[in-house]
Amino acid sequence: MDTLNIAILGCGTVGGGVAQIITEINHDLSIRARTNIVLKKIVELSPSKASERFNLPLGLFCGGGKDLTGTEANEYIREIISSGEIDLVVETIGGKSDFVFNICLDILNSGKHLVTANKALLAERGKRIFGAAEAKNVKIGFEAAVCGAIPIIKTIQESFTGDKVLSVSGIMNGTSNYILTQMQDEKLEFSEALKLAQENGYAEADPLLDINGGDAGHKLILLIKLAFGIDVSKEDLSIIGIENITREDIDFASEIDAKIKLICYAKKVNGDIYATVRPMLVKNSNFLSDVSGATNAVRINNQYSGVHFLVGKGAGSTETAMSIVSDIVFIARYGDKIQNIPVNEESNLAESHKFVFPYLISFQTGNIPGTTGFITTAIGNQEINIETVSHNRHKGEKAMFSVATMPCTLGQIENAIQKIRSEKPGMLLSEPKIMPILY
Amino acid sequence: MDTLNIAILGCGTVGGGVAQIITEINHDLSIRARTNIVLKKIVELSPSKASERFNLPLGLFCGGGKDLTGTEANEYIREIISSGEIDLVVETIGGKSDFVFNICLDILNSGKHLVTANKALLAERGKRIFGAAEAKNVKIGFEAAVCGAIPIIKTIQESFTGDKVLSVSGIMNGTSNYILTQMQDEKLEFSEALKLAQENGYAEADPLLDINGGDAGHKLILLIKLAFGIDVSKEDLSIIGIENITREDIDFASEIDAKIKLICYAKKVNGDIYATVRPMLVKNSNFLSDVSGATNAVRINNQYSGVHFLVGKGAGSTETAMSIVSDIVFIARYGDKIQNIPVNEESNLAESHKFVFPYLISFQTGNIPGTTGFITTAIGNQEINIETVSHNRHKGEKAMFSVATMPCTLGQIENAIQKIRSEKPGMLLSEPKIMPILY
Repeated sequence: MDTLNIAILGCGTVGGGVAQIITEINHDLSIRARTNIVLKKIVELSPSKASERFNLPLGLFCGGGKDLTGTEANEYIREIISSGEIDLVVETIGGKSDFVFNICLDILNSGKHLVTANKALLAERGKRIFGAAEAKNVKIGFEAAVCGAIPIIKTIQESFTGDKVLSVSGIMNGTSNYILTQMQDEKLEFSEALKLAQENGYAEADPLLDINGGDAGHKLILLIKLAFGIDVSKEDLSIIGIENITREDIDFASEIDAKIKLICYAKKVNGDIYATVRPMLVKNSNFLSDVSGATNAVRINNQYSGVHFLVGKGAGSTETAMSIVSDIVFIARYGDKIQNIPVNEESNLAESHKFVFPYLISFQTGNIPGTTGFITTAIGNQEINIETVSHNRHKGEKAMFSVATMPCTLGQIENAIQKIRSEKPGMLLSEPKIMPILY
Repeated sequence: MDTLNIAILGCGTVGGGVAQIITEINHDLSIRARTNIVLKKIVELSPSKASERFNLPLGLFCGGGKDLTGTEANEYIREIISSGEIDLVVETIGGKSDFVFNICLDILNSGKHLVTANKALLAERGKRIFGAAEAKNVKIGFEAAVCGAIPIIKTIQESFTGDKVLSVSGIMNGTSNYILTQMQDEKLEFSEALKLAQENGYAEADPLLDINGGDAGHKLILLIKLAFGIDVSKEDLSIIGIENITREDIDFASEIDAKIKLICYAKKVNGDIYATVRPMLVKNSNFLSDVSGATNAVRINNQYSGVHFLVGKGAGSTETAMSIVSDIVFIARYGDKIQNIPVNEESNLAESHKFVFPYLISFQTGNIPGTTGFITTAIGNQEINIETVSHNRHKGEKAMFSVATMPCTLGQIENAIQKIRSEKPGMLLSEPKIMPILY
């Protein structure tokens, strides 16, 4: 039987989970891979902590188990990259720094396969990484980079090859979903729910990338690449986070049988790709509304096979590590026959003001007769059909105005708001919130 | 670029869908497969009908488009099997007859790959089929055989290789799920809902295999083979269909916030496999309770990555065909590196009376004081903890007695019922229904 020698860079939550699984079920993995899967070396700054947490022999760690300085760790990484003995490197350091970027490039350039959960790096600097792999005919496993344990990468790459993806959407950030679920179920304000998420280990000390939609955006960029074959940069995507969602928004969603979820959404229409990450009102009749807490869910709509849902753990130690280990087995099995990413296709990313959805628009107005007529006329003048209007939740001189529209573009809505602003300065007493509605 | 020449046997709902997809997106498929995918021949008794329905040129059909007798069709099938030109055969005739069994064996023995949706054949006569493929090192694609469009086969075979499956369960028969959904939503009796399913094309003229759990059993046998590596025969499985579910059962389920679903369930406990197909009470808090109509859903619980759900179309023309076409691309990509089924593992199928679940037991009794005390004592004497008891829904002299238990074995419940029967003949006025409860 052949042998596949593996090194792991970074033995934290995910890397440690990989080492744990490879150690615990090594015999099964080797049988499945028809290749001896051998974990040779781990580079980690604090081996004793990792060894204890993941029950790993200290001898596996470069340096024999003693704590490493950054310089020492870097030297061991360089040794692994230049070693002829290692076939595959698991990069679980994370981040998109030049340091990690160069390590990944050098791994590939040295003719070694790379398996990683690093969504930021692949989404923002993936072109050169995938290019290097192509040039050296080595493989990149990145199942763990999108939605942790959910096997969405291989599902698109290997199971939907007999179809055409029409749209990809879903709940792809567990932290923001946990926060929104807490706001909904426990009647918390955003800041209270965020604090709870941090206390319970669902949010990083710096949760910015989770709550501003950046992390979800990285995943969507990778899914767009796989499903539609085009490269999208983060700057081109229309990304809105959950920072400005209030309890009042959540309560109002409940009133119309909906929940607010941070949704990733990409759809191909006549060759154009519409893509966005933003809070949406998900009707309770939609499957995604049931996805609560740290769970992730991906919805794929295909031309021939219709709608699919994949639901599972979007993060976690062995949960994410499982995807990395499965990638290792896949590379052991199929090696150079694997195509890392699909061939580029001709498509354009459409501008966000062209997105067609039914929308909910809400803002504060004065509690003044004539308001409803003026606003609904301005909306109607933009050829937008209105489904429901409410002008209520009065607070003193103010009231909340909410309009649910039939499908229209964001551009039409922005025009209507512009008209109201120019013809009735002072009618809008708050910045309008515009959220797509998913039925 | 290499070429993969394909023949399709049977151009009905599924086979026609395969021909349609291969024809419509041939260029994409060939790029993805890095192989020219060429549909060479179709054998079909009524080509003109199939040609019209799936928009296929008559020239693709053996015989040039004229209707074939059975003998003529068989001769063309033999020609294909002995042809050196065909690389892969799609068998979409269906059924487990000797006729189809021998065709599949001969395809494999002639060194050709086989792709099929034939769950009955693979579940009941699969051992020799897979053995023949092994002997000739050719591949069998059977993604379409389990839950139509849901990519559950490849998910277990290729995406969960870094994990250990603990349990597989789900709703795997769309017809019975449609019938149960109609009984629930439209307040229909079983026979009315079945008639509606047939009128709307959700049930075959002979729906026996759908409603008696046989079709779901075939799928479970294949999933047990993939997830746990053991061969199970249909006779060994404990299979109960939905024929005896009444509106009263459905109504009672609603009262306790549950829905009745035909559930496939297989779980590994201490090396033993527990497996069954039967109606279960699925609590509304469980994701599976939302899966209605013809949709299928599979739940996988893994040791390292926890719970996954895959939801999608369990049947249909291009829906099922998509899985076949994806198998063709997979075989074109990876050819002889593919492992058809996992290596056999040591496991025993446990007997059904050892199944541990919380159960609901319900039967009619006389409306007689002392009944509740006697029955609950008999149940308690079997070391079963009771969660709730109700003795209501009185009809004249009769009343419905229902007990929800804490987790216990079916054997314990059967002992309790046996005791009640022997000590109080006449107390049970109907055959007890015993349904597991899924929380």
